[in-house]
Amino acid sequence: MTTIDLNSDVGESYGRWVLGDDVAMLDIVTSANVACGFHAGDPPTLRETCRIAATNRVRIGAQVAYHDLAGFGRRFVDATPAELTDDVLYQIGALEAFAKVAGSAVAYVKPHGALYNTAVHHDEHARAVVEAVRAYDPSLPVLGLPGSRLLARADAAGLRSVREAFADRAYTPEATLVSRREPGAVLDDPRVVAERVLAMVSGEPIEAIDGSLVRVEADSICVHGDSPGAVAMAAAVRERLTERGVEIAPFS
Amino acid sequence: MTTIDLNSDVGESYGRWVLGDDVAMLDIVTSANVACGFHAGDPPTLRETCRIAATNRVRIGAQVAYHDLAGFGRRFVDATPAELTDDVLYQIGALEAFAKVAGSAVAYVKPHGALYNTAVHHDEHARAVVEAVRAYDPSLPVLGLPGSRLLARADAAGLRSVREAFADRAYTPEATLVSRREPGAVLDDPRVVAERVLAMVSGEPIEAIDGSLVRVEADSICVHGDSPGAVAMAAAVRERLTERGVEIAPFS
Amino acid sequence: MTTIDLNSDVGESYGRWVLGDDVAMLDIVTSANVACGFHAGDPPTLRETCRIAATNRVRIGAQVAYHDLAGFGRRFVDATPAELTDDVLYQIGALEAFAKVAGSAVAYVKPHGALYNTAVHHDEHARAVVEAVRAYDPSLPVLGLPGSRLLARADAAGLRSVREAFADRAYTPEATLVSRREPGAVLDDPRVVAERVLAMVSGEPIEAIDGSLVRVEADSICVHGDSPGAVAMAAAVRERLTERGVEIAPFS
Amino acid sequence: MTTIDLNSDVGESYGRWVLGDDVAMLDIVTSANVACGFHAGDPPTLRETCRIAATNRVRIGAQVAYHDLAGFGRRFVDATPAELTDDVLYQIGALEAFAKVAGSAVAYVKPHGALYNTAVHHDEHARAVVEAVRAYDPSLPVLGLPGSRLLARADAAGLRSVREAFADRAYTPEATLVSRREPGAVLDDPRVVAERVLAMVSGEPIEAIDGSLVRVEADSICVHGDSPGAVAMAAAVRERLTERGVEIAPFS
Repeated sequence: MTTIDLNSDVGESYGRWVLGDDVAMLDIVTSANVACGFHAGDPPTLRETCRIAATNRVRIGAQVAYHDLAGFGRRFVDATPAELTDDVLYQIGALEAFAKVAGSAVAYVKPHGALYNTAVHHDEHARAVVEAVRAYDPSLPVLGLPGSRLLARADAAGLRSVREAFADRAYTPEATLVSRREPGAVLDDPRVVAERVLAMVSGEPIEAIDGSLVRVEADSICVHGDSPGAVAMAAAVRERLTERGVEIAPFS
Repeated sequence: MTTIDLNSDVGESYGRWVLGDDVAMLDIVTSANVACGFHAGDPPTLRETCRIAATNRVRIGAQVAYHDLAGFGRRFVDATPAELTDDVLYQIGALEAFAKVAGSAVAYVKPHGALYNTAVHHDEHARAVVEAVRAYDPSLPVLGLPGSRLLARADAAGLRSVREAFADRAYTPEATLVSRREPGAVLDDPRVVAERVLAMVSGEPIEAIDGSLVRVEADSICVHGDSPGAVAMAAAVRERLTERGVEIAPFS
Repeated sequence: MTTIDLNSDVGESYGRWVLGDDVAMLDIVTSANVACGFHAGDPPTLRETCRIAATNRVRIGAQVAYHDLAGFGRRFVDATPAELTDDVLYQIGALEAFAKVAGSAVAYVKPHGALYNTAVHHDEHARAVVEAVRAYDPSLPVLGLPGSRLLARADAAGLRSVREAFADRAYTPEATLVSRREPGAVLDDPRVVAERVLAMVSGEPIEAIDGSLVRVEADSICVHGDSPGAVAMAAAVRERLTERGVEIAPFS
Repeated sequence: MTTIDLNSDVGESYGRWVLGDDVAMLDIVTSANVACGFHAGDPPTLRETCRIAATNRVRIGAQVAYHDLAGFGRRFVDATPAELTDDVLYQIGALEAFAKVAGSAVAYVKPHGALYNTAVHHDEHARAVVEAVRAYDPSLPVLGLPGSRLLARADAAGLRSVREAFADRAYTPEATLVSRREPGAVLDDPRVVAERVLAMVSGEPIEAIDGSLVRVEADSICVHGDSPGAVAMAAAVRERLTERGVEIAPFS
């Protein structure tokens, strides 16, 4: 039987500002990338998010970011590797406290936004993130893009690397992501998206941006949580997978 | 043989700004109240502070504060109890990550600045701090002022309360602190201070602000770390105690 | 002909987080209380808000707050009067830059949230806010609650004080606000609210919380901008006033 | 008679943390690059710094930075040009309020740290800074490195560009700065530094890092304010210039 993990970003509210429908998403996904306060996620938000995740038996991951609240972690910050390692440690620890009081624990680490994109090609920042995870707990997996420096560094450090695919993003014939700046980079039809995910997890090719066929391998599928229609799309993906006998469960 | 713990605030630098001589203080004290980022203490500072503390076998405590970097945690913030509990949890967790990678652990909690002073009389905030500690790890002691709501709430919650006295502060005949606004509230002669601490830990009375004698009981003595002459005073206290056969060791 | 000013809080988004429908509100009100970055309002938000306000000939006011992003300025912060004065100056100046590039200027000051409520009774903080306005530009009016320390201090300093009433809040027989914690404190029927505002500006009594009649005098009416239905209620107030021949214009 | 401007970074304390000896530096320089709160400089610091500058008839400049308190503005932040323009506007406006209440005004703009270095070669960020100045007040000069994109963009926008040289930095034979990472990049002998500045302002060549002679042209000389010995070096420069009949005065 085929099994797949669904992950999504949650805990991205901050004080008075609400973002996304975490309650609904935590009813759909099996892994929750919880913001840790550096790009989003004030302490009460983290506590409540971890509480719901633990109740729903959703795995808690630390969604670590550059220290940039005003930019929502979407801007590269040229921190030294040592600073970045320490910033990541701080965030993992902070989230761990809330996971712990919820009866759970931080179970993996996934970089957010600009840090995620930077860690694809920026070896020093990729290594700095991995170094934080290794120092904190070498049994924690790292989630990232297949072929990224992040996963290469995780492998080299003896950490478990978890390959992620995106439900609603177009792919090149080489199985890399089409830049958001190009037309057609983001898909918005829940049915189309659900079929693509089904193909991915079944080991079948999907249509690349140029119409050719490409195989995308993944241990976890990311469904977005903060766009309009996010919940409906995530629900469609889950429903289609279940319907076809795919088990939705945390990556092992 | 008499034994006493010496504690001091450390880790209160932030990025480019340096405060105190932590290397020297961590050679003198047995318990380190490490800032957690809300009033001071950026991640690289926390990491280095925990590393030195662990190397020197100094116990690491979480010096938790109101969220107020500009005010250095010296201003009361009227947070709801739930917000305050979550802010304290966030800080303990963040520090724990650095204690852990240093091979140590957060071993107690002490509020900083305005939160320390508020928790003397403000039952809701005292309770909120205690609730964070209880939820996180009920084996962690709470350091505070004898007679404070903080220690009362810690006792009521089944936590260990640790009574603290101040080396360089004047006391009233009722064994409470003389307000800093009053003349003579802060002592600055290392020899006088050392003698007073020796008396306190020997169970003998010290001179109160009005000339009468008062007994101040304590499980730990706080020596300040960020004033000019702080290191010299702390060293004088340690030397005088050792000279008279008092063992300097973490509170048990 | 009767004339009244309508004011509302705007510019309270921050980076990725959006709050309220400023475009719609800036089409209804005549005075805009623009956040200045301490409780909400990142620079791009301030620029865009000032641009729209200037285009619509809506007057720009500085909505100054305690420095507390995580608490959205809703928590009292026990700043010293000098700190508070400087925090207010900083905020007025920052907003002024955006008002200026939009071809407008900061035309009044109104405290936000906890600072607004504190300045009703806390003489030192009321005075600190007024001192900032006086030092910056003594021709700037201060908006506040009738009977507040804020307006008393503004009067004493020779500033113009502008009395504000709330469209959707219940009043006591003494013309003070009913606490939000009490049932019936906030009204939500646009038609009822519109009629009450019409009565207020016409110099007629409205029904107090106990059923008695009370006269509420005001130079400006505050309509809320961030609740569901806020725009509809503000539009209903404006429509009803216009229908009855009341001119909606900035306070003179 | 030769005239030269001396500038220095001031106002870089923050809350409890003190950096540099601003009182001494504001007695030596003629232009003060005052931090604006994004990398350093809390409101009370800005107010006091502007007060002293105005009293001493020292010109006030806005030392604008990336939004990065933990990194002291020393890390590149990949903000969009529009975000950067708005961040610069916010900072200029905030400082203007304190300059105004001190009876002075913001008289020029100089980027700080990573923004200064980035604006040498990064055209979009150079342009974004210039756009903020142009929109705010096109009569304000921009201080920067000769040959930088910043000054080129300032010229292109019709702003006055002010060329700056560094008193204590080694130069290449091409009159560019030797990177701090190379040995000999920073000079620390006050007498040597004073002689070099005298040569620069007299239109005579100085010794480049390779021993050749190079002419460095400047409208203003930057003397550092936050290193040990900073005040002594700045005083030595001023004394030597005065001794040789060079007038120390703000750039015209």
